[in-house]
Amino acid sequence: MRMVDLIVKKRCGEELTDEEIRYWIKGYVSGDIPDYQTSAMTMAILFKGMNKREVSTLTDAMEHSGDVLDLSAIKGIKVDKHSTGGVGDKTSLVLGPMVAACGAPMVKLSGRGLGHTGGTLDKLESIPGFRTGLAEDEFVKQVNEIGLAIAGQTKNLVPADKKMYALRDVTGTVESIPLIAASVMSKKLAAGTDGILLDVTVGKGAFMKNIDDARTLAKLMVEIGTRLKRNTIAVLSDMNEPLGMAVGNALEVKEAIASLKGHGPEDLMELCYTSGSLMLTQAKIAKDVNEGRKMLEETIRSGKAFEKFLLMVKAQGGDPSYIENPEKFPLAKHQIEVIAPKDGYVKSINALGIGLASMQLGGGRETMDDVIDMSAGIMLNKKVGDYVNKGEVLCVLHTNKDANVYEAIAKDVLNEFVVVDEFVSKQHVIKEIIR
Amino acid sequence: MRMVDLIVKKRCGEELTDEEIRYWIKGYVSGDIPDYQTSAMTMAILFKGMNKREVSTLTDAMEHSGDVLDLSAIKGIKVDKHSTGGVGDKTSLVLGPMVAACGAPMVKLSGRGLGHTGGTLDKLESIPGFRTGLAEDEFVKQVNEIGLAIAGQTKNLVPADKKMYALRDVTGTVESIPLIAASVMSKKLAAGTDGILLDVTVGKGAFMKNIDDARTLAKLMVEIGTRLKRNTIAVLSDMNEPLGMAVGNALEVKEAIASLKGHGPEDLMELCYTSGSLMLTQAKIAKDVNEGRKMLEETIRSGKAFEKFLLMVKAQGGDPSYIENPEKFPLAKHQIEVIAPKDGYVKSINALGIGLASMQLGGGRETMDDVIDMSAGIMLNKKVGDYVNKGEVLCVLHTNKDANVYEAIAKDVLNEFVVVDEFVSKQHVIKEIIR
Repeated sequence: MRMVDLIVKKRCGEELTDEEIRYWIKGYVSGDIPDYQTSAMTMAILFKGMNKREVSTLTDAMEHSGDVLDLSAIKGIKVDKHSTGGVGDKTSLVLGPMVAACGAPMVKLSGRGLGHTGGTLDKLESIPGFRTGLAEDEFVKQVNEIGLAIAGQTKNLVPADKKMYALRDVTGTVESIPLIAASVMSKKLAAGTDGILLDVTVGKGAFMKNIDDARTLAKLMVEIGTRLKRNTIAVLSDMNEPLGMAVGNALEVKEAIASLKGHGPEDLMELCYTSGSLMLTQAKIAKDVNEGRKMLEETIRSGKAFEKFLLMVKAQGGDPSYIENPEKFPLAKHQIEVIAPKDGYVKSINALGIGLASMQLGGGRETMDDVIDMSAGIMLNKKVGDYVNKGEVLCVLHTNKDANVYEAIAKDVLNEFVVVDEFVSKQHVIKEIIR
Repeated sequence: MRMVDLIVKKRCGEELTDEEIRYWIKGYVSGDIPDYQTSAMTMAILFKGMNKREVSTLTDAMEHSGDVLDLSAIKGIKVDKHSTGGVGDKTSLVLGPMVAACGAPMVKLSGRGLGHTGGTLDKLESIPGFRTGLAEDEFVKQVNEIGLAIAGQTKNLVPADKKMYALRDVTGTVESIPLIAASVMSKKLAAGTDGILLDVTVGKGAFMKNIDDARTLAKLMVEIGTRLKRNTIAVLSDMNEPLGMAVGNALEVKEAIASLKGHGPEDLMELCYTSGSLMLTQAKIAKDVNEGRKMLEETIRSGKAFEKFLLMVKAQGGDPSYIENPEKFPLAKHQIEVIAPKDGYVKSINALGIGLASMQLGGGRETMDDVIDMSAGIMLNKKVGDYVNKGEVLCVLHTNKDANVYEAIAKDVLNEFVVVDEFVSKQHVIKEIIR
């Protein structure tokens, strides 16, 4: 078998056999197949696609390219949740404790952020002392004790994805639905849970810009998960405007804490209730989503979800006084108000623009070597569908950068808000559920 | 400027600016842009194409990626001929001496063969002592003295093409018309002649399998040459069946010698007359192609073309006794006759199949390290349109391989001949002329 023949085959729109896909991934991870052949192959896949059988095999080959987690020592039906990324997405910090408080073992391996989407690990590390690097046995022990852990991966999980994602990132092949599906699902499968809840974001601040692509991706991932014997459900959620009001690491942790205390923004809570109730059915803790939703609401009312988060922070070495008194999180030196120049309804808030602005204010990484300013970010005062008076605050920028930096950003951010005379209705955060 | 952004731009079907194309080629040759980005870019170009302005700039950037030949010391209007390759293509060996014998300085830098198409240098090296590695000053001196030289390149010409072609060969992007055009034309331009005659082959044994692709490629190359101020004309020629009767290095040299003595096969001679008469107009030696053709015919009748070939062989150190007595070329150990199993007209002879069979008999390289058996190859006895009686010889295999090898090949070769009951007319070798 020669890799060049497989590239030509795919380039001509033909199917690759399972044997051919495994030959590629094995050779790529071992180094026998060079980057330049894999980048040509991924570009050919971007143009010509893969069928479900091909993507399942690719996923399986990637999953088994390194270690896989063995969670069998954790009691109960383990569930995991994954988002395809967005701006202001602190869902895991709220949903995790809620689901765990209902008794479902929540096992979450998270990543770091690059570009405008912050990573869950980065957000958690804004809590002083919080350790995201748990060894496998620590991780298992913690989930057995408190029902919840959120950590980075320490073992050599899915090296094929690490290598291929880094390559795709610099060769213009990130935007391939089969490759995104295989990348996400290989990691989720290697993480070893029984149930997988996928949050597929769609809109300006998401990978998937339109609902058709998002639906295609979601269906493909659900199909792969099901073929590979995991209970997999996908939620399509709106990412045209940022999720919730806070964008930026410590700002989002504070919003998560407020949400756990019952003061969460509507869209974030709706996403948590919808996703969480599906996860509780996957974990066979709720008989249906209605029962699941009631259980989740009760974890907020009773304070049990907040307690669960506090337990997790303590277990992972974080300073609990920050959770109990969120005002302890240091504020950035500057808070710059962005003011509405006219009366009207907010028609749109470009999530991508807000995300990029937050990054430029210090809240994100442009390269893996950048250091994140935990206090930087943007607090929205208005969401789509809100009425705003001329002179009211649309949002507040938080930054330690100088005026010559933030003044230009403030202008850009103002342009991300579209205010119109006509009535605009609120967005529904949940678009579809695919199972 | 970032290479990944250029890849994405092209992938989305947008035009690259001149500055972007030059940035890519310069960075690729210097090593700042890695192979894996260039392979992704070439795959994106394969799918999305390039417009004429982009291909011209790419060609120019590649031409100037290394040395260019300075032929100003050669008197007269220099002409060059290039074929996009085929099976049994010994045109340069016949056409070169004919054109030179008419007084046009013929400057031909040739390559080696890989795969089923033999290279002109390989063929010439079947003449004992023949040197293809001439230094630039030797080359110039020889053309000034005898009007003709055929040699390999010794200077660092078009390193961008060398590097990119090797990469395309292993990443499945050879079959891109803009990239083929830029590859051919950058080499022709760097070789420094005033006129360029392109022989674009089309059919089963050629890169271009259909006339539309061949026409597109030819038009594009003529356009590039004209934009970059060279007199460029293209001939589209048939390569469904092999050209002439001989396939294989020494066998083709012997056929070339016979052709120069007036015993050439019809298709080969027609191609030489058509191409040569166009070249004589480019060199301003003939006022039109009719005059050019008469001059060329006279070089065969008078023996002047043969004398020119003999002069070139002597000038480049080859043993002239082989040219005067071609029976001196050693025959392969085995001659295996392939016999017609039925009466009928030859409808087709698959050039690709014949070329691959010749390679397997020892006449070609599968990898650059393979050593060519100069005596191996295939002699056709019949061409398309010929009538054949059951039991007549269709062709003869020449090889030093053992029976267990050549018997299987003989079976394959028989299958490359299609014999039918209905009358079949002869193929016209010249399909179109594009200028």
